[in-house]
Amino acid sequence: MTQLITGHTRFLAHLGTPTHSFKAPMIYNPYFEEAGIDVAVVPMDCGPDAFGDVLRSIFRLGNIAGALVTMPHKVPVVDMLDEVSPTVRVCGACNAVKVAADGRLIGDMFDGEGFVRGVLRKGRAVAGASALVIGAGGVGSAIAASLANAGAAKVGVYDTDPDRAGGLAQRLRDAFPNTQVSVGSNDPAGWDIVVNATPLGMNQGDPMPCDTSRIAPETFVGEVVMKAEATPFLAAARANGCMTQVGTDMLFEQIPAYLEFFDLPSTTAEALRRTAKIVY
Amino acid sequence: MTQLITGHTRFLAHLGTPTHSFKAPMIYNPYFEEAGIDVAVVPMDCGPDAFGDVLRSIFRLGNIAGALVTMPHKVPVVDMLDEVSPTVRVCGACNAVKVAADGRLIGDMFDGEGFVRGVLRKGRAVAGASALVIGAGGVGSAIAASLANAGAAKVGVYDTDPDRAGGLAQRLRDAFPNTQVSVGSNDPAGWDIVVNATPLGMNQGDPMPCDTSRIAPETFVGEVVMKAEATPFLAAARANGCMTQVGTDMLFEQIPAYLEFFDLPSTTAEALRRTAKIVY
Repeated sequence: MTQLITGHTRFLAHLGTPTHSFKAPMIYNPYFEEAGIDVAVVPMDCGPDAFGDVLRSIFRLGNIAGALVTMPHKVPVVDMLDEVSPTVRVCGACNAVKVAADGRLIGDMFDGEGFVRGVLRKGRAVAGASALVIGAGGVGSAIAASLANAGAAKVGVYDTDPDRAGGLAQRLRDAFPNTQVSVGSNDPAGWDIVVNATPLGMNQGDPMPCDTSRIAPETFVGEVVMKAEATPFLAAARANGCMTQVGTDMLFEQIPAYLEFFDLPSTTAEALRRTAKIVY
Repeated sequence: MTQLITGHTRFLAHLGTPTHSFKAPMIYNPYFEEAGIDVAVVPMDCGPDAFGDVLRSIFRLGNIAGALVTMPHKVPVVDMLDEVSPTVRVCGACNAVKVAADGRLIGDMFDGEGFVRGVLRKGRAVAGASALVIGAGGVGSAIAASLANAGAAKVGVYDTDPDRAGGLAQRLRDAFPNTQVSVGSNDPAGWDIVVNATPLGMNQGDPMPCDTSRIAPETFVGEVVMKAEATPFLAAARANGCMTQVGTDMLFEQIPAYLEFFDLPSTTAEALRRTAKIVY
């Protein structure tokens, strides 16, 4: 079955540079093809100088379904939009843009939502839970914001850079006043959820992001390093008896959220894994 | 076989509105897929207000292979380009744009080239020949220019609007001083090539574009009305014993010229007809 592009096809612009490592086209397009959705994700190799002009002009096209925004535009795009979600305000980054009927550009960020959906779909609660986020960079900020947005009672933030952790904690408090935010420790003991949002685990020999011996069996442990298999961190958590979530779960769990944002028929992470044309 | 769009895929923007009648995606993309060319034609529904901004910004993308420009932008695009071919100057219209390494936008127009290639590939000469073009609108201008560009010794131009015919004749003389240009008669007698470049033949009951009884058997007769079968005009010419060319031949014959312009691997009209996913 060929995804035949015709004059009726709409497109999702995938804006970033370099494009060679883009995964979204090989996940979204086979799903669109199988589901009979006449939309194609089209990579657009866009440098920083051109980005503002490109973003504004392509959203004047009648058949644009939205834009997936990635490096190096996730942060600068925020100031080009008319409306952003609380998650975007906490992250200071955005990776999904759509246009309203009146022409206003609306941005959101679902990296963290992918993490939260994975936790929920594995049967664990987020509302009322406590969660430790290790790493306060882009993805850590997104996860912390989405956890708070999903009703987490308590979010702990840790980063080797205390200013970065403190900044995230303050933005979380401002955006989600009902969530108790603590900062400064990566001790995983006593948390319902612990997530490694650092790159540690990408390379062999990386140190653990925290003292895994202190993770209790009832703690749910997640990972952002984009592997389909358990990293040493997750392996240690599993050895403790913990339920875990691999990095690629977050990737596939976030895609239904993007589809809903773009008002496209949605699906499940499992179906997306089945149709995706990439190997992890 | 699926044309899988990845982060390596380049795109040809197909700019116009409305997009629903676009045929190029269903001709180019199946060919690209079969030939293993990692390029996709992507329709972009672009209104007149947005066109200039869209054109300039998308050519700043690193993976754009070029643009196919169609209604209503074929005429206004000419003034937005840095360099255009003589054919574009004669037509006052352009439907293919690419970007040079230094960022200059270069335009050309191959509608007429498709007609000429069809004539040549059917074994008839254009260099040194005489050709009557009936209809001095966009497609007639393009054919007249391409005939002159291919070395036609004599081009006759006819239109029911004498000013339109006269204007085209003057532009032809300016651009192709070696071609003798005459104007004012649609008498098909004595021409090596006669082409109907009017819409006559699209609708049942249309009058003939000229007196077909005066077309000699050795005259090559062509048609722009986009049908795969003979129009009444071509049927009359065939009854006279003429060699003919249907409208869709011009469409398929022009595509190799566009592929060459975009520096993409080229093919034949026959191969394109075989892989195209449209029915005429």
